[in-house]
Amino acid sequence: MTRDLRVCFVGDSLVAGVGDPGHLGWVGRLAVGSERDGLPLTRYVLGVRRQTTAEVAERWAAECRVRLAGGGWESRVVLSTGVNDTTEEDGAPRLAPQESVAALTRMLAGAADAGWPVLVVGPPAVADAAQNDRIADLDDRFTRVCAEHDVPYVPVVTALAADPTWMAELAVGDGAHPGADGYAVLAGLVRPHWQRWLAG
Amino acid sequence: MTRDLRVCFVGDSLVAGVGDPGHLGWVGRLAVGSERDGLPLTRYVLGVRRQTTAEVAERWAAECRVRLAGGGWESRVVLSTGVNDTTEEDGAPRLAPQESVAALTRMLAGAADAGWPVLVVGPPAVADAAQNDRIADLDDRFTRVCAEHDVPYVPVVTALAADPTWMAELAVGDGAHPGADGYAVLAGLVRPHWQRWLAG
Repeated sequence: MTRDLRVCFVGDSLVAGVGDPGHLGWVGRLAVGSERDGLPLTRYVLGVRRQTTAEVAERWAAECRVRLAGGGWESRVVLSTGVNDTTEEDGAPRLAPQESVAALTRMLAGAADAGWPVLVVGPPAVADAAQNDRIADLDDRFTRVCAEHDVPYVPVVTALAADPTWMAELAVGDGAHPGADGYAVLAGLVRPHWQRWLAG
Repeated sequence: MTRDLRVCFVGDSLVAGVGDPGHLGWVGRLAVGSERDGLPLTRYVLGVRRQTTAEVAERWAAECRVRLAGGGWESRVVLSTGVNDTTEEDGAPRLAPQESVAALTRMLAGAADAGWPVLVVGPPAVADAAQNDRIADLDDRFTRVCAEHDVPYVPVVTALAADPTWMAELAVGDGAHPGADGYAVLAGLVRPHWQRWLAG
């Protein structure tokens, strides 16, 4: 029997694929790859520009519920937030790390209550080295939170900060969003975890 | 100056692009075409499977507000619903035509209040001839509602019901969703209206 798989991809502008002229982003590339592997899925992309983890945590449940609740299909959620938390405004990050952790924790608890398996993809690297240090710190914290909740976590910041394609596309773009090739790199980092998660 | 254009595409499974193994649908094809024409845009896809116009009207405003409200960019909405309204269950359509019209009217009024220009794309054709008659009736009603509200409307049901690519892909699919080529046909019908609307 074919699986009727419905996946909400929740997060920020990188989840929305901002900057990709082909309008797939990393999320679309994962989905197209799964189709090629014989696993079609309904893909709901719920990334919103500029949102912090706390802002995503405010809206994600209502948006996922209307798409996933009901019987007859398999419901899953991929979460990816955090870069916007680490943006400095007036000398402080938009969201303190412990608030980021609290917001992610609330979402993981909500997904467990709803019975939706979750995959968390860590915040990617940006063009600014100081901000990347803050993202790497958040990445450590998110790794621990997900381990505590038995949720698979895909760290990407270190690999992307060292990736010439990713960093070159950020540099010619707005410093936060890559183009098509950068999104392909990110999709490549996530793909093995995504495939393992879908098989589980 | 480059426009910072953010467009919410609101509606049902056809807006979500269900059935396209390339995960673009007609909405993605419009956006990619605009990128090629030098007009990049942030594309928020808010189609939900099985939803009637009344169900879409329940959620659309909150979902668009979180994505479009705020300053510094241009906010627009593309609406496309109605096929699910005309599905018969227990001998009656899921939503009576006057209820479909009322729900669309509420959304048009809400968008006008929010200051979001709207483009409405009519409900596409399905594989069932009797349902297509009901869709054509709804198409007439939606045409009138949009004219009354000075909102551009793109009728597609008649052209798609006569289109061999669209109808062939519905037939090999689930009867409601085409594949990649069918979505390309639909995008082609919408494109001139889309381009005129974005220029206005």
